[in-house]
Amino acid sequence: MRAGSVAKRLLVGRPLDSARLGETLLPKRIALPIFCSDPLSSVAYATEEILLILALGGLAVLHLAWYAAVGIVILLLVVVASYRQTCHAYPGGGGAYVVSAENLGTTPALIAASALLIDYVMTVAVSVVSGVAAITSAVPALDGHATLLSVAFVALLAWLNLRGVRESGRWFALPTYAFVAVIYLMFAVAAIRMATGTPIRAESADLPVHPVPAYSGLALVLLGLRAFASGCTALTGVEAISNGVPAFEKPKSRNAATTLAVMGGLSVTMFFGITTLAMVYDVHVAEDPTELGLAPGTPTSTALAQIGRATFGDWHVLFYALQAVTAGVLVLAANTAFNGFPMLASVLGRDRFAPRQLVHRGDRLVYSNGVVLLALTAIALIVAFDANLTRLIQLYILGVFVSFTLSQSGMVKHWRRELATPAGRPGHPDRSERRRIRRRQAINAFGACLTAVVLVIVLVTKFTHGAWIVVLAMPLLFATLKGVRRHYDTVAAEVAVAPGIRPRPLAENHVLVLVGSVNAPSLRAVSYAKTLKPATLTAVTVAEDPAEAEELGAQWEAHGIDVPLRVLNSPYRSVVQPVLRHIRDAPQRTADSVVSVVIPEYVVGHWWEQPLHNQIALRLKARLLFMKNVVVIDVPYLLASARQVGADTRTLVDPD
Amino acid sequence: MRAGSVAKRLLVGRPLDSARLGETLLPKRIALPIFCSDPLSSVAYATEEILLILALGGLAVLHLAWYAAVGIVILLLVVVASYRQTCHAYPGGGGAYVVSAENLGTTPALIAASALLIDYVMTVAVSVVSGVAAITSAVPALDGHATLLSVAFVALLAWLNLRGVRESGRWFALPTYAFVAVIYLMFAVAAIRMATGTPIRAESADLPVHPVPAYSGLALVLLGLRAFASGCTALTGVEAISNGVPAFEKPKSRNAATTLAVMGGLSVTMFFGITTLAMVYDVHVAEDPTELGLAPGTPTSTALAQIGRATFGDWHVLFYALQAVTAGVLVLAANTAFNGFPMLASVLGRDRFAPRQLVHRGDRLVYSNGVVLLALTAIALIVAFDANLTRLIQLYILGVFVSFTLSQSGMVKHWRRELATPAGRPGHPDRSERRRIRRRQAINAFGACLTAVVLVIVLVTKFTHGAWIVVLAMPLLFATLKGVRRHYDTVAAEVAVAPGIRPRPLAENHVLVLVGSVNAPSLRAVSYAKTLKPATLTAVTVAEDPAEAEELGAQWEAHGIDVPLRVLNSPYRSVVQPVLRHIRDAPQRTADSVVSVVIPEYVVGHWWEQPLHNQIALRLKARLLFMKNVVVIDVPYLLASARQVGADTRTLVDPD
Repeated sequence: MRAGSVAKRLLVGRPLDSARLGETLLPKRIALPIFCSDPLSSVAYATEEILLILALGGLAVLHLAWYAAVGIVILLLVVVASYRQTCHAYPGGGGAYVVSAENLGTTPALIAASALLIDYVMTVAVSVVSGVAAITSAVPALDGHATLLSVAFVALLAWLNLRGVRESGRWFALPTYAFVAVIYLMFAVAAIRMATGTPIRAESADLPVHPVPAYSGLALVLLGLRAFASGCTALTGVEAISNGVPAFEKPKSRNAATTLAVMGGLSVTMFFGITTLAMVYDVHVAEDPTELGLAPGTPTSTALAQIGRATFGDWHVLFYALQAVTAGVLVLAANTAFNGFPMLASVLGRDRFAPRQLVHRGDRLVYSNGVVLLALTAIALIVAFDANLTRLIQLYILGVFVSFTLSQSGMVKHWRRELATPAGRPGHPDRSERRRIRRRQAINAFGACLTAVVLVIVLVTKFTHGAWIVVLAMPLLFATLKGVRRHYDTVAAEVAVAPGIRPRPLAENHVLVLVGSVNAPSLRAVSYAKTLKPATLTAVTVAEDPAEAEELGAQWEAHGIDVPLRVLNSPYRSVVQPVLRHIRDAPQRTADSVVSVVIPEYVVGHWWEQPLHNQIALRLKARLLFMKNVVVIDVPYLLASARQVGADTRTLVDPD
Repeated sequence: MRAGSVAKRLLVGRPLDSARLGETLLPKRIALPIFCSDPLSSVAYATEEILLILALGGLAVLHLAWYAAVGIVILLLVVVASYRQTCHAYPGGGGAYVVSAENLGTTPALIAASALLIDYVMTVAVSVVSGVAAITSAVPALDGHATLLSVAFVALLAWLNLRGVRESGRWFALPTYAFVAVIYLMFAVAAIRMATGTPIRAESADLPVHPVPAYSGLALVLLGLRAFASGCTALTGVEAISNGVPAFEKPKSRNAATTLAVMGGLSVTMFFGITTLAMVYDVHVAEDPTELGLAPGTPTSTALAQIGRATFGDWHVLFYALQAVTAGVLVLAANTAFNGFPMLASVLGRDRFAPRQLVHRGDRLVYSNGVVLLALTAIALIVAFDANLTRLIQLYILGVFVSFTLSQSGMVKHWRRELATPAGRPGHPDRSERRRIRRRQAINAFGACLTAVVLVIVLVTKFTHGAWIVVLAMPLLFATLKGVRRHYDTVAAEVAVAPGIRPRPLAENHVLVLVGSVNAPSLRAVSYAKTLKPATLTAVTVAEDPAEAEELGAQWEAHGIDVPLRVLNSPYRSVVQPVLRHIRDAPQRTADSVVSVVIPEYVVGHWWEQPLHNQIALRLKARLLFMKNVVVIDVPYLLASARQVGADTRTLVDPD
């Protein structure tokens, strides 16, 4: 089994299936691109989002970008250090939901889950829109079609995932490593060119930046904090590795922690490098070209595209390569959400906060529902926000920091519990261990405090700019998850039987076979009904007019069917009503007898044949469900098209 | 039973159900508004569409509107006369599909059906958009939101129809009669004011009309024909009465024909009156305000609104009343399509050109599908055409005239057949009857020729302006209808059994009961399984780990269930695969034995509870369908919420 298919299984399928996967786990060099395309790719837009916010204050405040960048780098290092502890504590995988559930309780865990679910949607929307921005920066002719392109990309991703794309390790590795390589190459070229005395300026360096209002005092501080909050997008996706620890080669926790550190190093250097170049080149960006003194509708480039164009100058090939790998890694980052969403849904399903059928993620149908739901929500967001990255970003970071804070707080409690293990019990830490645990706890505590502070900053600075939508959506999701659990608990209580209660026996089974005409499916249904050895067996038909009934009766006799045929008249062509009435009024019904209605069912091979058959049976069944002591039995008859499909799928062993 | 509920039943429900409805049929004064809101309302926009096309040729050609209007009036009179013959010939209802099928054969009938189905969609789109234009003309502030408003109206109509709105006779009658009354009042006021010497001018009378190119010769003729073709919208919906003859009081045919004549009279006078006032007042309209020398985006009024405002002058109340009743009658016209669509679908279903379940229109579920389909298609059209009435109209008339031509041609053949009845046979016409039939045939022949000519004019003048979409869609629909029929025929041939063939007996029934835990639904399933008196009876459970299996086993014994419990291990949490494997490998399976899988089913009362239960059963069933000699039996267990619903619906007699 190749590493790629392992990767797929781990992301999509069965992370707990260690018996089968023990021998084929991920080396660090494959795990890095698989788990880190999201956090690494976010450096492609983080710098720009800082500059866009600061542009509101005019040229004079652009230098604040330095402070924002330094703050983000520190934050990133702290969060990475903090999550490294999670890798050590949860070798079985420690997502924010799991850690919160185990250490903080149900409510914080569900808050984390709501935040994560929303964030998966945002990851798809933001990454794809940003990837499209990389494309339109390289091909300005596409500038007016960002929404359409973004929607098309989401649809493409959904389609690939629905078809069950087999991502190979290379697939994951290539764009991510290529992105890192091109960014570092750009840094090298920039350094060499500037060292040799060539001054490099961005295409927008001489454009004016029109501040809308004048900022000073508290307003200026708030603007700086808002820029910082927007730049925090660089941190999204950091938790992915802590989630995927079981996928690593042994020693799992150590390898995961090392990979996380490498990711942190790459993120920090790339982000800081890009921000530095943006400042040195005097990159100016604004939400609207008119703010830069350009005509309305002038196509503008992303900050990263401007840096690339300025750095590579005449080497157009490298510029286009930069844009291509940026788009590639961003689309890949969006794809991780298509894997993460069903993974979290599965855990929620196991804990009965989500429909139980989500537990088994391997199932195509269930997985498809998740993919479609995720894609539609992301598309709705993209269309509603007109593929405007800056406005979408406002909704993004809030959920990330909610889950960061909860996860790190949970870790603090986790370590406290470890420390509290009484002497003599297994797991009681010795002195040196206690010291180590205390250090880890301190790191997590610091991480929790810092991310909580950032959460407040994000909430305050972004609330009116769109974050309120998330503040509204999270409790709704939370209530839904809670409601599902309550429903399951209510039902479980309702169907519980007291100990010792025995099944109440049913006396007799009266069987009706519903037939429309004498044909192979009907004959089969009659044969099946006979195997039930019922107390009474009657065939029932609904006739629109007496002639029809007479003809059927004649055929019935001609075929020598030794089951009495009862004709129900239905001048109104309804099949359901007469049958319902017949069953209700059947004289042989007693309190402890049961009526079984046998219906021939046509099994077809193609989805489009489905609505052409069995609809009356479906409707009848829907009504009979609510009648006491009535059971409907569909006896399938395979049509030729279905036999073909059956031949293909009768290999019942999991084809995977 | 009130006339309103009869109306509903006739439009929605069971037109052939004469035994039950014999004594409560529609008087003409109720039938008129019920069947004629569509044709009467179309005079609200027909004049404007003529003027809009002629505006392309500039002021100099606006007088051609007279010719177009006269042409349309003649056409309307001919078509009404022609359809009056259909009322006499088909007292059971003579829609274009029925008449074509009976007289011309399957292919013309299906062409007519395709044309009609498309036209129902267009009726919804055009009427609603036009109704919204009446509103925005009165409230210019809403001018930019026509698409949103139109979509909202379609959604509202769909919602009302899904909820099963009970239209009362008054509901139907009020807006239609009010519309007619206000229009005639407007004519009276205009006549009196002009007679007393007040010159009335439209608000747009002094606006210039900028012709885009110069028209002359053939181009001018074509422009005139195009204007005529656009004005032909006044004819849409004329066939509704001929469809609804059985709904009339006796003498049905004569009453229907009379109502049709009244409708024709109203239509002709209203249309001609509105056109006259538009010409006298110098109403100028154009697709874009800039063509009238106005600034881009200036809100403009419909022609009818301009006439109303000019006529009523300071009596603002009357102007607003005009706009309100116009909007009302147009929305009502759209609603008729929501009734007509399932009616035609039912007839197509009866003839097996559409899914069979459509035959019984009374069923909520089936009707809902039709309503949703119709609404979504209309919304898609409105959005795609940006609620632009003039562009939508291009798609409208083609289908109408296809069905007119086919229907009238069919009538010609119908009369020919009546004439050909040999002497001595019943139905042989005597001399005076022959004369009458010949006259009717002549009227229909003239109608067929005239509508065919108009069809060609419509096709030629509108093809490049959007009618090509319909030219493309009609064959697609046609092919779909044919394909459904072919599928049904193939299946019927496949399941047919040769005469004398007897049901092949099945030897034994091996029953498996699938249980997850010991609870009421499981106990019930076990009890049911016992009534089947199977050859072997086993309970099967899928366990994730041995502890779980052991606990279930203990409970099983504690409850004294005398059925052996077999535990299937599933470390991967999949329920479906282990069960499939168990059934496939069951040793007792022979060629003529059958395996019944009994599954406890949770019956819930609310739709939103549905996805929370039985999903594994559904998936298992989907897979088992393709296994030979396997039957799945769901044994329903009603949860409290379902018992509530069951109590409400156990009244099995049709609640209508």
